[in-house]
Amino acid sequence: MRLGKLYGIGVGPGDPELITMKAIKILKEVDVVLTPKSGENKDSMAFSIVKKILSKDFKIIDPVFPMIKDEEILEKHWNNTVDLIFSELKEGKNVAFITIGDPLFYSTYSYVVRKMKERYPEVEIETVPGITSLSACLAELNIPLGEKDERIGIFPASYGLEKLEELANIFDSLVLMKVSKNFDEIVRTLEKTGLKNKSIFVSRCGSEDFVSSDLDSMVGKEIDYFSMIIIKGK
Amino acid sequence: MRLGKLYGIGVGPGDPELITMKAIKILKEVDVVLTPKSGENKDSMAFSIVKKILSKDFKIIDPVFPMIKDEEILEKHWNNTVDLIFSELKEGKNVAFITIGDPLFYSTYSYVVRKMKERYPEVEIETVPGITSLSACLAELNIPLGEKDERIGIFPASYGLEKLEELANIFDSLVLMKVSKNFDEIVRTLEKTGLKNKSIFVSRCGSEDFVSSDLDSMVGKEIDYFSMIIIKGK
Repeated sequence: MRLGKLYGIGVGPGDPELITMKAIKILKEVDVVLTPKSGENKDSMAFSIVKKILSKDFKIIDPVFPMIKDEEILEKHWNNTVDLIFSELKEGKNVAFITIGDPLFYSTYSYVVRKMKERYPEVEIETVPGITSLSACLAELNIPLGEKDERIGIFPASYGLEKLEELANIFDSLVLMKVSKNFDEIVRTLEKTGLKNKSIFVSRCGSEDFVSSDLDSMVGKEIDYFSMIIIKGK
Repeated sequence: MRLGKLYGIGVGPGDPELITMKAIKILKEVDVVLTPKSGENKDSMAFSIVKKILSKDFKIIDPVFPMIKDEEILEKHWNNTVDLIFSELKEGKNVAFITIGDPLFYSTYSYVVRKMKERYPEVEIETVPGITSLSACLAELNIPLGEKDERIGIFPASYGLEKLEELANIFDSLVLMKVSKNFDEIVRTLEKTGLKNKSIFVSRCGSEDFVSSDLDSMVGKEIDYFSMIIIKGK
């Protein structure tokens, strides 16, 4: 039997209309949808977007991926996931791995591509790009990046914060991703480096759209996982 | 009469299927499409994408924007363009400014937003994000960026090249935009900094898809304007 094909499909930032025609076309054709979720009783955000557009009955595979950091456990999880995908492909079924945003920009789909290439190099993989949360946030704010040959630095704040001042000296604009984990520390660092008054906090752009330039008011509170800080100009 | 609304619409990287449902919905509703072109006898790439999807008759405004660097002339051009847009809006017509890729990521739409806010602050502007050429290239290559908290630096090579080594020390991945102007110099710098063997040249992803990791073979040749170099890992 002919091996099925694996698609990695970006369904965009949240607004069901921000999905591409190509993503819809492929979702109409595939048999199986794979969509990781972060907890046993949680819904997959990516699949909730798809459900709003298509009323089709997919076979759904939704492994639970708790927000763990342990690389060894993560690798085991992804090995299992790739094996699950392959057992469908072997039966000639096409499988779509769906992700919010873009599949290859700060997404767990990168694990799938790597593991699939390692374990089953014979599988054909096609990736369909999606609208990133960054593009959705820029649209919500109507703020351009890359104007007049601007340099843009993008990094996860949970990891690169100690480099913030150095980066601010090189780049015209900075985007801090994943700001929920150490938000209070981020605000302190922005204050110290004189960048706070150029910083805008944005959350869930393309769905609920929360925007604030008053970062102080959020210190000590729980910050949404789907958040970022954009520091524009200097 | 009620003032029309200005939309900035990203039509994606070239493949007509990589346009969003939202972009199509709005294009079906607007009266006027504005799409700058780079020469008198050249077609607008953005509009050629729209024509492949919609057979509708728009009123088309396509001012010529030669690839000029002179800021004063550029500003004058954009002032005129914004005035053109406003004269349509004044008649109650909605206008869509269409751009390839994403309107707020390395796009001339940034001029429109700024000028419109300056000259006609009463105008309502809505931006619809698009698939960036970067996302399309990552999909074509099946290369992830942002894996495991990676730092990503994006900058136009025509401007930031002297910082390349410094940036390579800080970032896990680099994206060099606009590499056509000084391509030979870029290749020399990549060679000198030991980054050449990690560099991939990509051009017109999402339409014609040209990929090469043999940068040397392109030295001395004319390089397509819609090109970039991705330097992944170190």
